[in-house]
Amino acid sequence: MQKILVANRGEIALRVMRSAREMGIKTVAVYSAADRNALHVRYADEAVFIGEAPANQSYLVGEKIIDACRKTGAEAIHPGYGFLSENPAFAKMVREAGLTLIGPSPEAMEIMGNKLAAKAAALKYNIPMVPGTEEAITDVAEAKNRAIEVGFPILIKAAAGGGGKGMRIVEQAEDFEEQMQLAVSEATSAFGDGSVFIERYVSSPRHIEIQILGDTHGNIVHLFERECSVQRRHQKVVEEAPSSVLTPQIRAKMGRCAVDVARSVNYTGAGTVEFILDENLNFYFLEMNTRLQVEHPVTELITGLDLVKEQIKIARGEVLSFKQEELEINGHAVELRVYAEDPANNFLPDIGTLQTYITPQGPGVRVDDGFEQGMEIPIYYDPMIAKLITYGSNREEAIERMIRAIDEYQITGITTTLAFGKFVMQHQAFTSGNFDTHFVKKYFSPESLNEEHEDEAKVAAILMEKLLSERRQVVLPASVTSANNSWVKNRRTY
Amino acid sequence: MQKILVANRGEIALRVMRSAREMGIKTVAVYSAADRNALHVRYADEAVFIGEAPANQSYLVGEKIIDACRKTGAEAIHPGYGFLSENPAFAKMVREAGLTLIGPSPEAMEIMGNKLAAKAAALKYNIPMVPGTEEAITDVAEAKNRAIEVGFPILIKAAAGGGGKGMRIVEQAEDFEEQMQLAVSEATSAFGDGSVFIERYVSSPRHIEIQILGDTHGNIVHLFERECSVQRRHQKVVEEAPSSVLTPQIRAKMGRCAVDVARSVNYTGAGTVEFILDENLNFYFLEMNTRLQVEHPVTELITGLDLVKEQIKIARGEVLSFKQEELEINGHAVELRVYAEDPANNFLPDIGTLQTYITPQGPGVRVDDGFEQGMEIPIYYDPMIAKLITYGSNREEAIERMIRAIDEYQITGITTTLAFGKFVMQHQAFTSGNFDTHFVKKYFSPESLNEEHEDEAKVAAILMEKLLSERRQVVLPASVTSANNSWVKNRRTY
Repeated sequence: MQKILVANRGEIALRVMRSAREMGIKTVAVYSAADRNALHVRYADEAVFIGEAPANQSYLVGEKIIDACRKTGAEAIHPGYGFLSENPAFAKMVREAGLTLIGPSPEAMEIMGNKLAAKAAALKYNIPMVPGTEEAITDVAEAKNRAIEVGFPILIKAAAGGGGKGMRIVEQAEDFEEQMQLAVSEATSAFGDGSVFIERYVSSPRHIEIQILGDTHGNIVHLFERECSVQRRHQKVVEEAPSSVLTPQIRAKMGRCAVDVARSVNYTGAGTVEFILDENLNFYFLEMNTRLQVEHPVTELITGLDLVKEQIKIARGEVLSFKQEELEINGHAVELRVYAEDPANNFLPDIGTLQTYITPQGPGVRVDDGFEQGMEIPIYYDPMIAKLITYGSNREEAIERMIRAIDEYQITGITTTLAFGKFVMQHQAFTSGNFDTHFVKKYFSPESLNEEHEDEAKVAAILMEKLLSERRQVVLPASVTSANNSWVKNRRTY
Repeated sequence: MQKILVANRGEIALRVMRSAREMGIKTVAVYSAADRNALHVRYADEAVFIGEAPANQSYLVGEKIIDACRKTGAEAIHPGYGFLSENPAFAKMVREAGLTLIGPSPEAMEIMGNKLAAKAAALKYNIPMVPGTEEAITDVAEAKNRAIEVGFPILIKAAAGGGGKGMRIVEQAEDFEEQMQLAVSEATSAFGDGSVFIERYVSSPRHIEIQILGDTHGNIVHLFERECSVQRRHQKVVEEAPSSVLTPQIRAKMGRCAVDVARSVNYTGAGTVEFILDENLNFYFLEMNTRLQVEHPVTELITGLDLVKEQIKIARGEVLSFKQEELEINGHAVELRVYAEDPANNFLPDIGTLQTYITPQGPGVRVDDGFEQGMEIPIYYDPMIAKLITYGSNREEAIERMIRAIDEYQITGITTTLAFGKFVMQHQAFTSGNFDTHFVKKYFSPESLNEEHEDEAKVAAILMEKLLSERRQVVLPASVTSANNSWVKNRRTY
């Protein structure tokens, strides 16, 4: 494999190219009109323009990606995440063009892309699923019997549903009939179909996923878990590895299940099996993502492996160079997704120019980004500016480093979620490890940010007064000139 | 310990403050007139001006450091490396002021700062020394007998010597008398003292050092070795851990010797025991450095420990939280010192402004630096801009990452040794691990850099031609716009 085309943009395009470069493989970037000056274009050995800014005219057009390979002689395509990365039709197109997709087979993608098919595949290996009805039902008496079998609290959800419509949580059996009737009538009026599913309601769920790697020789290993429970509107915002709640026994069991899920579709490449974990540490299969995850760096830091290199080696037909029993967890890693969004204003995306952009440095800090000072954040794509990842010998140190790194990150011109990240890192529920996917909803409000700002403003005012009254003394209150906290950063720009 | 004063500047001041901040300890910076806008001043919670730029009016004046502690209420001083870090008089002054020095006792510093005293201390534990005469001699016959005992080749060096004067290498016994007479007469005319020492000449020496940590409760451990054989004029330029030549047996033996050397002076804190290793893997004690080393990050990366935090914990009286048998090496790390020097022009220091300064990112890359874009490199101090450190699961990967990171590092306005670093990383003697302290002298010449430049210029010219002739095609030769190789970087600025 001499040359790889990276069918993506931003941080993940750079991330992939870095590993390719280290392996001595040439890289080809593709770019839309909005990304003419993007870093991934500068970083690649060659770059091909593929169309206008909206992704459906460029990054999502499979034919243009294949054309760019033909033009440049690239033999393989790394799809990154998002865009075409989990599109079986594209995977087939790549195969038919005689090219290699650095990812699983279209068949594995297809099965895992379909919830029912994925569930059916996983069931062959007795993977635990959230208990509930396998088929939609309408009969209230039958539904109640199933609900009692499953155990309360249960969730009634419309078979044709979406957006929470026709969804009811029922705490105890005596309320069931009434809630079921309400759900059915809501579903009927909303979707014209009153049938519902019944499943166990996990009231305090954690989102835990297992990274797996499978080669083309039938070897599949897992690289332990990632805890991704800190989410905002079902979007992960903070991830870590390992999870602070798994015991070695549950970790090993989840790992074996994840390997079995992968085996059920003869999975090759890097993939992620997602589970939901309840308050009693029971876990249930959710779905499998058939691509590299955004949060893969935390796994890299605790295992010492480079997942992109492993993906490339697998695509080259190499045998995995390690066995399950040789893998171990070293230390702890935390990732914060830094978005161009205003946490004080309902996370509204913020666009504009990165007037100041200086990344944190020093021990245990990794930044995966796609921008430089002076660049603009385009409005067309995901507003993630960077992934800030910290590593420590234990969880406490990784979190302390994250706070230190957030304070060091200097960004002006655009409002980011760094302050929100600091809020998470300093919240007792997070530091204690005692949180679930409701963390943000439960604890965060824009006021949580203001409190800190006010404190800092107070401190700065006191220091300034001290400075003025002791002018002859040479002690400078550094926080007045410091670029190291977000409040002062804002003050300096405006 | 609530507040620490860092009696240093540049990258190491920042490095120390980062760890203190992670531990929740406030920091005080000191700064000279040349460092008013330095990053370490901005990073600290408080900063104290201590005098004019020349270090003997500021960073080297112990009284000013103590005064700054009094003024700010700092209870402890971290001296970094250089400046006052190995000065026993300063260490005593700190103790007498009722403050804590984050480092060993003045007594340990004093002994290890004196070659003869250090040797005497180490001999109590039978630490191997380079074989030779223990006292200066003048008698030729006696000298020859000693030389035969020691074994050829041997080195004759003037007792009063320095700068290579009166120094002779003798390959075989029959040449001894003549060379000895020449050495004596040279020494007499140069120093007025003809007496000489005789010792085994190590013709292919490697510089290997062992990191040790000792607490105030008598526990001392070693954190394995660092290989520092790539030197220029006795100045380390590339370091790595572990060494590619040590066997586990020799590593364990050197480690035990290093711990014994430390024990011989009841050493507390972080220290480094330096050894010379000959081509038969015999090692000999050279000296002990009683401070944090510039190259400590490579040890941090392979052990997962934060050495500055360990120093602080020891100074607080804590017991080491790990035993020797719990420590292990994970992966491989390489450090390149990036200097503001022109490798094509005899490494002449280059001063000026960092017009572009963008650090490399991504997996396995750590940068310890003290500058930001737009800053000036002051002429008064060591011209090191940054330490670029890479980590990999093995040596090959760490080196590949270093090359990738060097290519990513964007610095304009100042000539740096990055190109020299790339030369080292790509040299067969380095990649094979088969090198000694003569590496630079033996292999490097300014032409080694030009060759690569010419190749790159050729490639760029071909690509440019291709670009012009195929204007309608949208394939951009990225290297023309790329900021990712040093040649193009230079081209963009001038």
